[in-house]
Amino acid sequence: MHPRMVYTGIRVKDMEESIRFYTEVLGMKLEGREKAPQTHGESAKLKSPSSEQIIELNWYAHGSTYGTSYENGSEIDHLGFEVEDLAAWIKELEAKGVRILIRPYEIGGWNEAFIEDPNGIWIEFLQGRAPD
Amino acid sequence: MHPRMVYTGIRVKDMEESIRFYTEVLGMKLEGREKAPQTHGESAKLKSPSSEQIIELNWYAHGSTYGTSYENGSEIDHLGFEVEDLAAWIKELEAKGVRILIRPYEIGGWNEAFIEDPNGIWIEFLQGRAPD
Repeated sequence: MHPRMVYTGIRVKDMEESIRFYTEVLGMKLEGREKAPQTHGESAKLKSPSSEQIIELNWYAHGSTYGTSYENGSEIDHLGFEVEDLAAWIKELEAKGVRILIRPYEIGGWNEAFIEDPNGIWIEFLQGRAPD
Repeated sequence: MHPRMVYTGIRVKDMEESIRFYTEVLGMKLEGREKAPQTHGESAKLKSPSSEQIIELNWYAHGSTYGTSYENGSEIDHLGFEVEDLAAWIKELEAKGVRILIRPYEIGGWNEAFIEDPNGIWIEFLQGRAPD
């Protein structure tokens, strides 16, 4: 049997703030949002237009079994987003007040830059590498 | 401009062991593997047959700027994999010696179960929910 990877689930500190970031800043589309009674929380699924990658945001109520303190760890390295024009995109982000953690630089034939999402997850923007 | 999510990058403790897990246990296909001179490390891209979701494994050499100690945190909640027959799949995993962390149970109309990857990342197997 072949399991089929269907999404990446990340945990978020604040659902509204995270949905706002992934939709308004990164331009992703909210595909669904549902209560999760067993965790006293919520989950939401998002994808970029013209991409099949899906992320699921998971929020757990404080005091629930899952609502432990939020620790930034090593497991997630970064989420990768491709852009057509990295310099222009970074200008757009700055106009929205987004802090650029690592400004565009060239590396092995493509350009990349990094910001952080509201949970401290690194977001990479890359330009010039063939789509995977 | 619309950035386009192209992959989820996770950090791994041991590249060979992680590639073995994602290919031999989860049946993913290794799409590419390359040295990353700037981190003295390596990256590898994998996907499941019949899925567009891509994960990138990132390994950093100990002693490099990125090769800090590996801490399990909250950012990545789990990676979601769909299977056709959860009970049969769990039997397959057990035959391979994989430890089942949470055995199949029903939750809101579908069944799910969990294991861990070699890095401590939770892997969910789900059956019975409409594909996203």
